Amino acid sequence: MPRMMDLSSHATPGPGGDAVAAAVAQACLDVERSVAATLASDLPPVNTLCRHLEQYHGKMVRPVLVVLSGLATAPTTEKVAGGLVTLAAVCEMVHLATLVHDDVLDEADVRRKTQTVNRLAGNEAAVILGDYVLSAAFALCSTLGDARISEAIGRTGMTLCAGELVQLHHRENLSLDERTYFELVRRKTSSLIAVSASLGCRLAGGPDALQARFGAFAEKLGTAFQIQDDLLDIAGDQGVVGKSLGKDMEKGKLTLPVIHHLATATPAARGRTLTLLGAPEHTPRQGERAELIESLGSTGSIDHARRTAESLVQEAKRDLDPVPESAAKRMLLSMADAVVSRAY
Amino acid sequence: MPRMMDLSSHATPGPGGDAVAAAVAQACLDVERSVAATLASDLPPVNTLCRHLEQYHGKMVRPVLVVLSGLATAPTTEKVAGGLVTLAAVCEMVHLATLVHDDVLDEADVRRKTQTVNRLAGNEAAVILGDYVLSAAFALCSTLGDARISEAIGRTGMTLCAGELVQLHHRENLSLDERTYFELVRRKTSSLIAVSASLGCRLAGGPDALQARFGAFAEKLGTAFQIQDDLLDIAGDQGVVGKSLGKDMEKGKLTLPVIHHLATATPAARGRTLTLLGAPEHTPRQGERAELIESLGSTGSIDHARRTAESLVQEAKRDLDPVPESAAKRMLLSMADAVVSRAY
Repeated sequence: MPRMMDLSSHATPGPGGDAVAAAVAQACLDVERSVAATLASDLPPVNTLCRHLEQYHGKMVRPVLVVLSGLATAPTTEKVAGGLVTLAAVCEMVHLATLVHDDVLDEADVRRKTQTVNRLAGNEAAVILGDYVLSAAFALCSTLGDARISEAIGRTGMTLCAGELVQLHHRENLSLDERTYFELVRRKTSSLIAVSASLGCRLAGGPDALQARFGAFAEKLGTAFQIQDDLLDIAGDQGVVGKSLGKDMEKGKLTLPVIHHLATATPAARGRTLTLLGAPEHTPRQGERAELIESLGSTGSIDHARRTAESLVQEAKRDLDPVPESAAKRMLLSMADAVVSRAY
Repeated sequence: MPRMMDLSSHATPGPGGDAVAAAVAQACLDVERSVAATLASDLPPVNTLCRHLEQYHGKMVRPVLVVLSGLATAPTTEKVAGGLVTLAAVCEMVHLATLVHDDVLDEADVRRKTQTVNRLAGNEAAVILGDYVLSAAFALCSTLGDARISEAIGRTGMTLCAGELVQLHHRENLSLDERTYFELVRRKTSSLIAVSASLGCRLAGGPDALQARFGAFAEKLGTAFQIQDDLLDIAGDQGVVGKSLGKDMEKGKLTLPVIHHLATATPAARGRTLTLLGAPEHTPRQGERAELIESLGSTGSIDHARRTAESLVQEAKRDLDPVPESAAKRMLLSMADAVVSRAY
């Protein structure tokens, strides 16, 4: 089963590094247990689907951000407080719900190297299961007893969906500009990642200004993460990434490399790319995909996207300047670097 | 536009009747405003869909139950407290979210005499919009500042979805028994109706035991309501009901009249009914639908369902015995009678 983003390869030397890494790893296991316990049902048809979702836990980016932001706010190498685990489980469940529904919308068959719920049990079951998981996230969140956290999670759900709706609206819009792209990504991807970090800080007692710093850090991280996803969707290896690739192109979603390419290519190259991208629901053949990758390379568009992600990561790290030095902070900084170096 | 269940035809004579009826009518308008304000977005593609949902408000059963249960707990003919309006808007939004997703699952084209969201904007937009509305319901709920209410709403969302998943599991199960049917209905329909009443009581300061009475009353009401929906789906007039009919049969969902019929018909009649119902995704032709209605009548199955709904209503009314006499209580009792007399 794929596990949390491999932080061990980004060693965090210095006092307490090993202890924090161990505490985070333990917290991730506790999050998985909390999610499973929250979703568990006495009804076998429900339970079977929820058990299948256990294979959906991937890099655990949101839980790790909750926990590390909490630990960086109130450093401790002891057991991660139960509240942080609960909040981390909430953020992971909101994410799981969006994955289940995204796979319906994308007609995807593979997720984390296993069948998607829609593939396994049909679109109807997948739509209902997503609602079940989203409701469970809110039920669990309310047990924290902090109405502002519950409201923030609910509002983030709205933001995510609004981003998805606007993305749908712009589907096949071949003149989408970078400004709109970044606004879309901020809503549909970065918002939940940002709130994971800012609420982790809040739950650990951090003041509003510090919460905002963690939020700004993670929002940029989330955008860099999405750009890396765009790159992997175009040029990644499905066996390594573990989900259906080429779906963005197939669904007419413009990604950063493509947007840059269309804005900078010669009229002839632009025309050819538009032909490759143009037909709605057109699944590019293998040869066409290779041609597209080559075209994107010729205008430096893949490099442009990569550099944009890298500079976002550098900016993100500066957002944490006011956070006191700690092993948890160092791990957050390592995590930021890992976002753009990952191949899955 | 269809408005709240017509309570005026069930006159509630006695002191304060008119004032409470006026307060409830005003509260329903306030609920519609609260829902619209909560869903409003600065993004035009989102706003267009949310505006379309304004036509989805129907009988306002859940908001009316919240408000009347609150008023019956702490009788007043003055303005309905803002908290009750907020809670009523939350319950209505959870309901709206399920309608939007149900219409995707049922491939329905018409709802409240207008286009469904899936028909208007496609399945993808409808799936995302449902998530948006559900998230908005939770965000709004948390502003009440009562974690137990938020948890109850989240758990009710889970119960609803679990009921839908089990219903899906039993699709085309032609030997579904009444016990399983009632369990399904309790989850997928009655749970939200029950929680509307019990939380309305809670918000007005009612003790746990009284909350349970309101919940029991409304749960039975919800089941009677579903049976009436079953009857309308089989024998209603689409122009009056205002939504696509015959969908239960088409989707292989067994309804109470059909379950009773299959359990009591002669082998020959049963065989013919199974043929009519048998083919998955089979849309009965007009003549077949008439034949099915006649068969159900011949075993007294339509009467059986009608009588079951009526006796549930009588039991429900007795659940309110411990509630002190008031105009709001009388209106709840009238509402119970209206459930089984409605034609839409």
